[in-house]
Amino acid sequence: MLVPVILSGGAGTRLWPVSREGQPKPFMALPDGQTLLHKTYCRAAGLLPSDGEIVTVTNRDYYFQSKDHFLAAKLRQRGHFVLEPVGRNTAPAVAMAALAVRARHGDQALLVVMPADHLIRDLEAFGRAVERAAALAETGHLVTFGVVPTAPETGFGYIEMGEQLDEGRGARVRRFVEKPDLETARQFLDSGDFLWNSGMFCFSVATLLGELERHAPEILVSAIACHEASSGDELGQVVQQELSGEHFAAFPDISIDYALMERSERVAVVPAAFDWSDIGSWGALSALVEPDAQNNRAAADAVFVDTCNTYVQSDDRLVATVGVSDLIVIDTADAILVAHAERAQDVRKVVKQLKDSEHEAYRLHRTVSRPWGTYTVLEEGPRFKIKRIVVKPGASLSLQMHHHRSEHWIVVRGMAKVTNGEGVRLVNSNESTYIPAGHKHRLENPGVIDLVMIEVQSGEYLGEDDIVRFEDQYGRAC
Amino acid sequence: MLVPVILSGGAGTRLWPVSREGQPKPFMALPDGQTLLHKTYCRAAGLLPSDGEIVTVTNRDYYFQSKDHFLAAKLRQRGHFVLEPVGRNTAPAVAMAALAVRARHGDQALLVVMPADHLIRDLEAFGRAVERAAALAETGHLVTFGVVPTAPETGFGYIEMGEQLDEGRGARVRRFVEKPDLETARQFLDSGDFLWNSGMFCFSVATLLGELERHAPEILVSAIACHEASSGDELGQVVQQELSGEHFAAFPDISIDYALMERSERVAVVPAAFDWSDIGSWGALSALVEPDAQNNRAAADAVFVDTCNTYVQSDDRLVATVGVSDLIVIDTADAILVAHAERAQDVRKVVKQLKDSEHEAYRLHRTVSRPWGTYTVLEEGPRFKIKRIVVKPGASLSLQMHHHRSEHWIVVRGMAKVTNGEGVRLVNSNESTYIPAGHKHRLENPGVIDLVMIEVQSGEYLGEDDIVRFEDQYGRAC
Repeated sequence: MLVPVILSGGAGTRLWPVSREGQPKPFMALPDGQTLLHKTYCRAAGLLPSDGEIVTVTNRDYYFQSKDHFLAAKLRQRGHFVLEPVGRNTAPAVAMAALAVRARHGDQALLVVMPADHLIRDLEAFGRAVERAAALAETGHLVTFGVVPTAPETGFGYIEMGEQLDEGRGARVRRFVEKPDLETARQFLDSGDFLWNSGMFCFSVATLLGELERHAPEILVSAIACHEASSGDELGQVVQQELSGEHFAAFPDISIDYALMERSERVAVVPAAFDWSDIGSWGALSALVEPDAQNNRAAADAVFVDTCNTYVQSDDRLVATVGVSDLIVIDTADAILVAHAERAQDVRKVVKQLKDSEHEAYRLHRTVSRPWGTYTVLEEGPRFKIKRIVVKPGASLSLQMHHHRSEHWIVVRGMAKVTNGEGVRLVNSNESTYIPAGHKHRLENPGVIDLVMIEVQSGEYLGEDDIVRFEDQYGRAC
Repeated sequence: MLVPVILSGGAGTRLWPVSREGQPKPFMALPDGQTLLHKTYCRAAGLLPSDGEIVTVTNRDYYFQSKDHFLAAKLRQRGHFVLEPVGRNTAPAVAMAALAVRARHGDQALLVVMPADHLIRDLEAFGRAVERAAALAETGHLVTFGVVPTAPETGFGYIEMGEQLDEGRGARVRRFVEKPDLETARQFLDSGDFLWNSGMFCFSVATLLGELERHAPEILVSAIACHEASSGDELGQVVQQELSGEHFAAFPDISIDYALMERSERVAVVPAAFDWSDIGSWGALSALVEPDAQNNRAAADAVFVDTCNTYVQSDDRLVATVGVSDLIVIDTADAILVAHAERAQDVRKVVKQLKDSEHEAYRLHRTVSRPWGTYTVLEEGPRFKIKRIVVKPGASLSLQMHHHRSEHWIVVRGMAKVTNGEGVRLVNSNESTYIPAGHKHRLENPGVIDLVMIEVQSGEYLGEDDIVRFEDQYGRAC
């Protein structure tokens, strides 16, 4: 039995302004419109029979968004969400996933660990590599996936292959090498014995837990305690397991590579001859767009004048460049990045500056995700604020009240069920309603398509914190 | 009697995306928030007694915007607007202004011709130069203002000074020189005999008309015919003269320099020792902003990482730059420009490409000016469109009807008077009203502050051309 374990974490600060703390890299849409997480779910499902299960380990703040992506992929497999209270690197994440799988499927289940922010397009080659890895995992190996290098990359770790295993389908790992300098990377590439460390793994639950006991017993002990203290919940196609905050906090911040792979003697590698990108920076992302004759790439309405080697991305604005080269221009609703193509790694410095100065743009987009859907501030002015609110089918905002603002709601798509003071009524497309300040109110989408509503707030104070919640189906503070 | 004549034309295509055909350079706000035209009105008014008059020659499409700027400057002088049906360069504009002034003030009045897109900060020095020019103009000279050069500029025309006049307060003009090459410009600068041709002039109506008769009689003949065929209207502080389209079309497209200055023997120059910029490009505009230690200039919320010599301008978005230098980044609501600082002149190529491909962004901003105020499209989606509408005090939209859309109106500031079918009612801040498709309606601002309203349109077709106008106080097609 094969169980994909998707690790969906990591801020992706090099991909700011699209990737932000509140909506990190796995939720980023690629130029084809699909998000990395969506693609990862489809890739995982392709390995499974229809009654299989996919485990996602992510921060609990990302639960609702992750579940939306899972459901949007319309898979037949079940989704099991292991929710971390804080980030603690990959070793705790993998250990908790293994215990969750053991409880449901026993310790002979094989885990395929895959980060949510990788892009692999040759799914057949990926499937073949997983088959080879599974065969080695069944014989007690901790199997890594090594990508056959195509260039002397200095941004990746490398794996040196040793003795062949399973008639050459894999190899023992001689050693792991951290990101090398260019000269060393060239030697690795020439020797033919080195592979890029992809960050994907395959092993049985039994092998993983056994090797953890041998090489990192403190992690296993913490994991078992945390597993026992955690609560689960099953809702149709989805299982949700919220990890105990108190116990999870006891984990060290350590990667599975460092805690286990570099220590164990049972580590093997499967050379994986598929295209692979970790979409680590705007450079990697821009490579997905077809270049024109001047090697410019546009995921936008763009006008290039005397421009070359430039990537431009924008959802809804025109971008014009004049007399420039080797630039990356990324436009979002509230922030624009202009970076030199060779400095794509340093985009994280922008995020650090924003965070240090407590600028909201490191954290939030203009469109903010909520358990029930999204809201987007379209405009703020003196004494008014305009939002577009999208409520998912069947979802409901909390029963709430504002002291300082009244709200005009105009439904432009779908149907709303509105509680307003004592009354409840249905508001159809092209109808409106008015919520005076001080009135208890609730907005629900009773229909089967998204509800899209324009809200015009009016009042002296329009901060998000003027809200009194009375009831909330997502367990938010009342 | 001195009458400033402000020439407000010219597309300013090098200042795209802020300057656009529908809102050209004179209406551009500088980093201090004031527009070039506003500053020009203040500069002109400073030359006049409180019962003076300022003439503006502009395209009739810009009349309402120009008048708004004039009134916003809160001057005590009268404003006289000479409205051209099409652009025909400066010779026809100056001739028409001269005839307008002669009709009201006789032919001894002195005209001070000044383009609306110049920036002069030392108003005292400017005033002294105008005094000297006026003295020479009274003795029958066509006086130009020559700016004392500070660098070997190749983007300006030059004036060579000859024999001194009026005890050295001015000089005869020996010759005009078109934009020279760099070597020539250096020689001009070193010689001390050359001044930049500022495009400002001073002469009496009588001298101008007499010299036109001698050197460009066809212009004078056309001008007199056009003046006689044109209609005027007086509304309080403002006089409006709409030039006859049929007669104006007969003018050649020719500059006053070429038609007259380079031919007349009565041309003098006053050296004008004031700071002067024609704000011809983003380079000139960026120079108005204080640089930081890395010579970066920001008229925006900006984060500079390893960046130097870069200018960033944005009204409401964050702009971050990484590892770049010598860039100009200009952000507007619907279009972004990224240009090399030394290629600022080539921004016009973007406008040409947009015009050739009929892209609206060469012509319109997201905020569109109308005689009654402005509208801004905040968002468009399937079957809905959201606009912010600002109506000036006392102004009124046309009585109109839409076949395919209904409209929700929410007043967020000021007071609206709404005609809706047969009814008329006042709608106060934080109140709303609904206009069903097919209903005749009209929006007015009966108050003394701007009316700000959010309009949510709903319907199958939301194009601006779904409008039937029944009555319009601005004379637009019914």
